[in-house]
Amino acid sequence: MYILALNCGSSSIKGKLFALPPASDSPLARVATLAVSNIGAAGDAVTLRLRWATGEDVREAGGDGGSVQHRDLFPWILEHVAASGEVKAADIKYIVHRIVHGGTNTAGLVVTADHREALDQMDALSEFAPLHNHHAVLGVKACLDVLPDHTSLLLFDTLFHQTIPPEVYTYALPPPDAKLPLPLRKYGFHGLSYASIVRSLSTHLGKPASALNIVVAHLGSGASSACIRAGASIDTSMGLTPLEGLVGGTRTGTIDPTAIFHHTKEYWTDAGLPGIKVSKAEALLNKKSGLTALAGTPNFATITANAADPTSPEHARAKLAYAVFVDRLMGFVTQYLAKLLAELPIAEIDGLVFSGGIGENAAGLRADVLGRLGWLGTSVDAAANDARSDDVVREITAPGSKLRGWVILTDEEGYCAQAAREQLGL
Amino acid sequence: MYILALNCGSSSIKGKLFALPPASDSPLARVATLAVSNIGAAGDAVTLRLRWATGEDVREAGGDGGSVQHRDLFPWILEHVAASGEVKAADIKYIVHRIVHGGTNTAGLVVTADHREALDQMDALSEFAPLHNHHAVLGVKACLDVLPDHTSLLLFDTLFHQTIPPEVYTYALPPPDAKLPLPLRKYGFHGLSYASIVRSLSTHLGKPASALNIVVAHLGSGASSACIRAGASIDTSMGLTPLEGLVGGTRTGTIDPTAIFHHTKEYWTDAGLPGIKVSKAEALLNKKSGLTALAGTPNFATITANAADPTSPEHARAKLAYAVFVDRLMGFVTQYLAKLLAELPIAEIDGLVFSGGIGENAAGLRADVLGRLGWLGTSVDAAANDARSDDVVREITAPGSKLRGWVILTDEEGYCAQAAREQLGL
Repeated sequence: MYILALNCGSSSIKGKLFALPPASDSPLARVATLAVSNIGAAGDAVTLRLRWATGEDVREAGGDGGSVQHRDLFPWILEHVAASGEVKAADIKYIVHRIVHGGTNTAGLVVTADHREALDQMDALSEFAPLHNHHAVLGVKACLDVLPDHTSLLLFDTLFHQTIPPEVYTYALPPPDAKLPLPLRKYGFHGLSYASIVRSLSTHLGKPASALNIVVAHLGSGASSACIRAGASIDTSMGLTPLEGLVGGTRTGTIDPTAIFHHTKEYWTDAGLPGIKVSKAEALLNKKSGLTALAGTPNFATITANAADPTSPEHARAKLAYAVFVDRLMGFVTQYLAKLLAELPIAEIDGLVFSGGIGENAAGLRADVLGRLGWLGTSVDAAANDARSDDVVREITAPGSKLRGWVILTDEEGYCAQAAREQLGL
Repeated sequence: MYILALNCGSSSIKGKLFALPPASDSPLARVATLAVSNIGAAGDAVTLRLRWATGEDVREAGGDGGSVQHRDLFPWILEHVAASGEVKAADIKYIVHRIVHGGTNTAGLVVTADHREALDQMDALSEFAPLHNHHAVLGVKACLDVLPDHTSLLLFDTLFHQTIPPEVYTYALPPPDAKLPLPLRKYGFHGLSYASIVRSLSTHLGKPASALNIVVAHLGSGASSACIRAGASIDTSMGLTPLEGLVGGTRTGTIDPTAIFHHTKEYWTDAGLPGIKVSKAEALLNKKSGLTALAGTPNFATITANAADPTSPEHARAKLAYAVFVDRLMGFVTQYLAKLLAELPIAEIDGLVFSGGIGENAAGLRADVLGRLGWLGTSVDAAANDARSDDVVREITAPGSKLRGWVILTDEEGYCAQAAREQLGL
């Protein structure tokens, strides 16, 4: 029997396939990693990459990205999984889906071919994560169609943040006009990544998760930070939607809430995105802003290279984009450290964790952030910080540093698969 | 000769009248304070209160607040000023107006009956501070009509923040649709208050303003915080408009920029406020949110009383409102302290200053904020913090506290009058 962990976005599908061991306390064994790209990219072929733990590495090109549908992709993916001869599609008995917005749900939701109620609930939340939930729901439906006997578990990026207290999650807004599918409050996202990081650091330090106090900077194309006390989220930078907080690859992050009213004429009209209802304002704030607006690219490696190269025609705006990114990041990291320090001596704080594509790769950014925390007795280990490594948990501060710095490789799919075993008793 | 400092809002006019001494280095002498209330309040009479330094205290009721116009109020005010026999209206040669939004102006603007260009520029900015700039411009025009020979100086709340660096003031937005009267960026407000506080603390400590490093929490019905390094603003919580940042009496402060799109149907339609164009969204975020939305009142004293009284029917929501207010405040105060500590030893930080109506009066709030900064070696002097005093500058931390805490009575009108002398060479 196998368990497949899937992350269906608007332009890609990522997944990891695990063999379920007979004993529930044996670790999961990853048998394959899959990635589908170019969904929605008119003129480009959809591509599938399937890497088996055996070493086999399959690359396939499919139909045109502009016309391909989620419901067609899954039979195609499973056909290639089965073609390997290693795994029969019918042996995939469990699929765990990462869903971005889970509203106020405090546990994952089970979905089967006969019990699909949770899907309507998730789709109703699509207006709060239009670029995510809707596509994930399409993915769940496609899986139920092609593998009608499996059990799906929906896990939400909001779950980990359900411990945030009311004074943090409450917005100072009057009651809304009409009944909404969820209360307007901070939910927070990247929760499966934060949960995975807590688990990894807890294992590394040999310390129960419930004793872990950390600040995490999860920096990818979507960037957020979280304050974790006793293993539980007590604050995070994203809000009602993933827009609030840090500057992202294409997201503004926090700005004056009225700025968009002055920025874009008829900001309330439909953005015309296929299949989903999104206003011009939301599309612009989420997809055309952030590092892309500041530096012309969301690629952080390009930005740091241009910022470091005075001869680059992009030098000035790359430097500004980098400085803006760091300024906002320091704002969250320092207020979260202060939140922990208000209750705990620094010796009980387990450190500042960097994760996500930028967090893992941008050694210069990490050095800059930790350098601005010298007043807390932080001392970077330059060699460790600059080193490349596949270690899941890697310390980048020097012995004796009063605040420890870490790079942790997040594994949302692995965390999801393990969480599914626990919730489903596998 | 006299100089009048005026602050014209949508519902009130506040002012202070000063005698100009012959020598430019002699201090200004305040001769009267004036306040007009109930402007716009249909059914209530507009009231004028005129308190003379001599002790005379005049109260007058005028026309109905709902129909009174700014242009009618100034002749009425001046008539009562003249009626005292102490000051002839024609001897008021200078009027300095506080204007909330000055865009990118880096100095005050001079306006006379024959040179009114600056007024059009200010009115064009009204869309960014609709509840302020427009009424202030009406006030300037009314003064020019009634006292055609005087010189007016416009001073802006944004001036003090013009030293904020680009990485702090830049929003990660693409270029706007159309040409706007000002760039979309963080401007910051309450600048005349911050400038007044820097001046007062500099005098108190006998230290040049340019050597002062402080974090200020200006907490009134409008609430903001600022990070001041070497006497100059390097960050502040308000943004393009006064909406961003802390929770206000009726303002949300920072929230997910898309929250309002889900909150209010047809959020882009006109709010129907008399004389100004404001969308439903902006009116709601600015006037119906904040403490009012959380606790049913913007009155912080009522909120703290209800929060402390478990038998109050308002207890639960007052407690939440207080906790939300403190949570957001700590976020800004701690990130600004960290910004200074990244560059300076704590001994060179002159402290955390509380100002504004809430900052001056809410001793419990100050104790809570300073209490959460114990990890910085902060130690409150409970008696000093609880004491009532008319001192302009008052220390509320104990001797030996590593971070000093202060209550400073801000004096925007006094600061404006003095700044006018300096700019106009009086």
